[in-house]
Amino acid sequence: MAEVQQTGRGTAKIAGAEQASNGAAPGAVGARTLRVGVIGAGYWGPNIIRNLVALERCRLEAVCDADPARLAPIGRLYPAVRREQDARALIGDPALDAIAICTPVHTHYPLAKAALEAGKHVLIEKPMAHSIAAASELVELAAARSLTLMVDHTFVYSGPIKAMRALIESGEIGELLYFDSVRINLGLFQKDVNVVWDLAPHDLSIMDHLLQREPRWVSAIGSAHFGRLENLAYITVRFDGSLIAHFHVNWLAPVKIRRTVIGGSKKMIVYDDLDPSDRVKIYDKGVSINADRAERDRMLVDYRTGDMLAPKIDKTEPLSAVCSQFVDRSLDGKRPLTDGHAGLRVVRLLEAAQQSIARDGARVSL
Amino acid sequence: MAEVQQTGRGTAKIAGAEQASNGAAPGAVGARTLRVGVIGAGYWGPNIIRNLVALERCRLEAVCDADPARLAPIGRLYPAVRREQDARALIGDPALDAIAICTPVHTHYPLAKAALEAGKHVLIEKPMAHSIAAASELVELAAARSLTLMVDHTFVYSGPIKAMRALIESGEIGELLYFDSVRINLGLFQKDVNVVWDLAPHDLSIMDHLLQREPRWVSAIGSAHFGRLENLAYITVRFDGSLIAHFHVNWLAPVKIRRTVIGGSKKMIVYDDLDPSDRVKIYDKGVSINADRAERDRMLVDYRTGDMLAPKIDKTEPLSAVCSQFVDRSLDGKRPLTDGHAGLRVVRLLEAAQQSIARDGARVSL
Amino acid sequence: MAEVQQTGRGTAKIAGAEQASNGAAPGAVGARTLRVGVIGAGYWGPNIIRNLVALERCRLEAVCDADPARLAPIGRLYPAVRREQDARALIGDPALDAIAICTPVHTHYPLAKAALEAGKHVLIEKPMAHSIAAASELVELAAARSLTLMVDHTFVYSGPIKAMRALIESGEIGELLYFDSVRINLGLFQKDVNVVWDLAPHDLSIMDHLLQREPRWVSAIGSAHFGRLENLAYITVRFDGSLIAHFHVNWLAPVKIRRTVIGGSKKMIVYDDLDPSDRVKIYDKGVSINADRAERDRMLVDYRTGDMLAPKIDKTEPLSAVCSQFVDRSLDGKRPLTDGHAGLRVVRLLEAAQQSIARDGARVSL
Amino acid sequence: MAEVQQTGRGTAKIAGAEQASNGAAPGAVGARTLRVGVIGAGYWGPNIIRNLVALERCRLEAVCDADPARLAPIGRLYPAVRREQDARALIGDPALDAIAICTPVHTHYPLAKAALEAGKHVLIEKPMAHSIAAASELVELAAARSLTLMVDHTFVYSGPIKAMRALIESGEIGELLYFDSVRINLGLFQKDVNVVWDLAPHDLSIMDHLLQREPRWVSAIGSAHFGRLENLAYITVRFDGSLIAHFHVNWLAPVKIRRTVIGGSKKMIVYDDLDPSDRVKIYDKGVSINADRAERDRMLVDYRTGDMLAPKIDKTEPLSAVCSQFVDRSLDGKRPLTDGHAGLRVVRLLEAAQQSIARDGARVSL
Repeated sequence: MAEVQQTGRGTAKIAGAEQASNGAAPGAVGARTLRVGVIGAGYWGPNIIRNLVALERCRLEAVCDADPARLAPIGRLYPAVRREQDARALIGDPALDAIAICTPVHTHYPLAKAALEAGKHVLIEKPMAHSIAAASELVELAAARSLTLMVDHTFVYSGPIKAMRALIESGEIGELLYFDSVRINLGLFQKDVNVVWDLAPHDLSIMDHLLQREPRWVSAIGSAHFGRLENLAYITVRFDGSLIAHFHVNWLAPVKIRRTVIGGSKKMIVYDDLDPSDRVKIYDKGVSINADRAERDRMLVDYRTGDMLAPKIDKTEPLSAVCSQFVDRSLDGKRPLTDGHAGLRVVRLLEAAQQSIARDGARVSL
Repeated sequence: MAEVQQTGRGTAKIAGAEQASNGAAPGAVGARTLRVGVIGAGYWGPNIIRNLVALERCRLEAVCDADPARLAPIGRLYPAVRREQDARALIGDPALDAIAICTPVHTHYPLAKAALEAGKHVLIEKPMAHSIAAASELVELAAARSLTLMVDHTFVYSGPIKAMRALIESGEIGELLYFDSVRINLGLFQKDVNVVWDLAPHDLSIMDHLLQREPRWVSAIGSAHFGRLENLAYITVRFDGSLIAHFHVNWLAPVKIRRTVIGGSKKMIVYDDLDPSDRVKIYDKGVSINADRAERDRMLVDYRTGDMLAPKIDKTEPLSAVCSQFVDRSLDGKRPLTDGHAGLRVVRLLEAAQQSIARDGARVSL
Repeated sequence: MAEVQQTGRGTAKIAGAEQASNGAAPGAVGARTLRVGVIGAGYWGPNIIRNLVALERCRLEAVCDADPARLAPIGRLYPAVRREQDARALIGDPALDAIAICTPVHTHYPLAKAALEAGKHVLIEKPMAHSIAAASELVELAAARSLTLMVDHTFVYSGPIKAMRALIESGEIGELLYFDSVRINLGLFQKDVNVVWDLAPHDLSIMDHLLQREPRWVSAIGSAHFGRLENLAYITVRFDGSLIAHFHVNWLAPVKIRRTVIGGSKKMIVYDDLDPSDRVKIYDKGVSINADRAERDRMLVDYRTGDMLAPKIDKTEPLSAVCSQFVDRSLDGKRPLTDGHAGLRVVRLLEAAQQSIARDGARVSL
Repeated sequence: MAEVQQTGRGTAKIAGAEQASNGAAPGAVGARTLRVGVIGAGYWGPNIIRNLVALERCRLEAVCDADPARLAPIGRLYPAVRREQDARALIGDPALDAIAICTPVHTHYPLAKAALEAGKHVLIEKPMAHSIAAASELVELAAARSLTLMVDHTFVYSGPIKAMRALIESGEIGELLYFDSVRINLGLFQKDVNVVWDLAPHDLSIMDHLLQREPRWVSAIGSAHFGRLENLAYITVRFDGSLIAHFHVNWLAPVKIRRTVIGGSKKMIVYDDLDPSDRVKIYDKGVSINADRAERDRMLVDYRTGDMLAPKIDKTEPLSAVCSQFVDRSLDGKRPLTDGHAGLRVVRLLEAAQQSIARDGARVSL
């Protein structure tokens, strides 16, 4: 992949792709290695670092954080990795093929833009950017330069979500009726973003991946009990037909709840991420419209109750799959599962929710 | 109370009240008996009947239901009680002091109006009426005739709500921040009202009783997956300041959840009506605003975690207290805990929620 | 069945049986009615009464209790039923075909013996008798007179046990390895029997019905913290091979637990009688003996984890099936599911457990 | 501590102790460092290593494991630590003050004996040894040489156990009545020890620490479904009076349960180690002996139900406290909380349980 670094911006990826397909040795792709730098060693960065280090086709070259106290443990654990305090030292380094950005939300856009402009593949922690405009620009930039732009929507790579996606795709749960999500706990109050931008990206990316539908409008209500940032919010997303999604995110709850209920016309799913044994439960319960007119006068629907199945769930750490996907897609140039478009779709919902909150729940079209 | 029966409509209660205060024999009030008729022997009526029968100061005289199949078991259980198929036979009966109405929502208003006009004290199943106008008229009518008008907001009389009300009243949980309620299950689809009018009265009456605040506006979103009536809805109620209440009601859920979380600035409460052992849990958890400016730059709030207390809860059947309250207040003329005004406050929220649903979540002022 | 009433003791059943098989009119059996008297209207009696009354082929004629306060509510609910204070009034009544005994344990034997001798079919609350000798005598007496002798092992008729029995019978869970049962709560301390005789009959009868194996020996340990009766006990039952059953019964626990785990070589079952939604869970988990010698040096077994299925469970009240079974078997003369032999098998385990407790856990052969 | 290394066996500790008290510089103790070697880098060793490394007064010098594959990751994480494949290289090293033994149970005794004879302080993973004789010899050896002998009864150092110990010590739960423990899951089948020696040391050490009573006898029953080692066992421990303890350990359960119930005459405790929020719950429930003779005829005890309190629990990793305790006690010569005597008490119960299993539950005196 030495060529990639020298061909510079724009053509980098194409050169890489050519090399991949035209390289003399069969299986050369497998032999190549992605040289990665990580910006941000706060809460999430060390997890990304740990998973990147474990990948064969990846070489972690450098880690950057403005705070030396965060770099110290990285030095102890990975003495061979270069440590920097200025992000420009990584972005401008021709020996790096890719950059992973694990910094506060408002810095995602400038860092990612600079990295893409420097011809690097980019992985960004969720949410991808602080605005639709910023996210769109990153998507365009990556497309123009044929670079991999991926967002770390971690849950999309988890066992429960994969099992649920397969179930929905198979048609087994029938027509999708609703998606109800609760993510609450006594959490860390962020100082730069509110609870919507902090917690909702998880659930919005799960919904985006599971439903694969175009939302029509958003309505949201929030409350800021301490300062100006909302610490509690309710978000509704409407789709065509009667499909509806709703999200409760809350930093100020005495108990921890991470539960999603998906209603289908044939089956219903409960996903409780904190259930130690059965995280996904599929209920053979539902209602059927009663076709008999005489009956309809008495009651509109029939009930059906049945078995519940809790399928075996893959327990592999999802972040390992995120990192693996980023490395593989950067090397082979294919579209990652959670590409820039997925990141943009989530940002679009976040910005619409923010606007609706400012207008007391009035609907905001998408 | 012999006079009450002979003086007939309108003046009945006044005569009764005079007798109560002017009666020669001390303790005469305790000796009197309320003669009650129950209209409606469907789902809830038999429960009201069972509890009325058990009260010493009450005599169940008659039960009415248009469906003879519902009257048959009443006859077997209470052979001495008169059975009727026409409500007018009870409302027009001068030998009855009071009427309990346990019929579908849209019949509450005409039946209650007729009963009040006939000089009867009235107990109505929740919600009190189908519209603000109808509920207001009943309140005025009862006031004009000095009759007891009471709504069966059953939960207000339950052990958990009483324990929570005492806690909030004592100031122990601090400033009220939010009220979050979930009431979902695979329920009976009603054919005359949607899920808002069916399930939300429970939670709105609980909120009304616990918070004792004037709501400012309502925003609600619903979805009707089968026919025209919403089977799933999310309702937000805003108060002055940052206090917010939110309700999720759903007839179409694979699991049954009945949980309310109340956030206070000092403590937080979780009320899980389905927890077999600890229905109310009080968490000594919270956040405090950090006064130090330098600290505030780092993080906005401090956390505090502490003990959890699950107080012993009174397990008396709340409907017994409802019936006892109705009988006692009808006899002594004092204001019942859940009077017509309480019923009207809940109907006001229901109608506002319905309007907001029709407008995709736009706020409706109260 | 007119003959039955006149032929009196001893030959009653034979006459009845002849009539059943020789009766001229086809379907005559279905048309007959069992005339039943109930002795004991304390805790369990009223439940038996309520279920007997609801059966078409049964006529509740009389109820007996030494305490008039217990008869009063029976009189209010069932005015047509005769009330007596002396059991002999029922046992000696030629107009009764059958007797249900719901009295303290030590009275089961004399009452049942007298009733059988008087030619009545007999249903006895669990445990059937206070000793093996007494239980054996009742079994012999019923056999000699061709009368129905049935014990109310209620759980055997419940949805969860029926589902589990079907599963075990089908061979789906493989070889039975263990049966582990916990039944604890802050319960009513009985004054006539200890916790073994009070609670363990439930679990021993469940085990007897599910496993259908001959136990070899019993070992038990108990503790009496208040007075002379054990309020906590642990009972082990051993079968041929490596199958083992264990029971924990406790009147003095702060939490209520009703859980049985059944280990099979192919699947395992968890039965939690207090789980509101999924009372029976079938786990596709297990171990397989590792045949590979080299592997065996490293580890003896392989693990297998898989799906969990919670089948839909019949929620019919089991006591209704108990009463229905008693009436039908008394009328048709066939063997009831929980006959005197089943009652005797449970009493045998109880007496052995009691003996082992007296000897600090030493094994007692059966 | 230089003298310690040179004075050699036997007097090592005394020399160290003298130095501690007679050293010229005040605060010298605090300045000294314990030089430790760890034998065994399988499942538990790396956890011990991670916690030792984090301690200021400890220097991890060497790690030994016969399997080089286990040493490799140690080398990557701690490049400065010497790696050895032969335990004698550590035991014979005069530059080491202490040895931590994290190897299979049957090797504990020879390794610990050699280490003590070499004048090293010794920390041993639970159970301390494979027999009473072996454990006793280690206790005597350590006493004779004034060396620290400590067993890693990890749970004793955990937040829940510390909270429960304080509660029992305060007398708040009243007289101790019973201790009931369940530790089951689909676990790793050990090839060298049965489930009693593998899992029960946890619960026996918890009991030993919480109750602080001398047990009188043991009764145990076990079953070996695969091979010769028991994979399921029930152990009863009797004390003077009516205090009783019972343990269920099981490698072959479909669900994971880690729960201890402690019954006291005033309060009761439920400790559920898997409860994510409330691991210790204190119930103000109980019974009181009814002194009234007339009442006693009706029922022997009165019930008392009350509040439940879940105190805030310290979440510090207990193994960190174990390692810290070992280092501090080795340096200051004081008795560690879980010393050799504690280890011996647990081994005594294990051996008695094993004997009882061989005799089908017959009691084995201690």
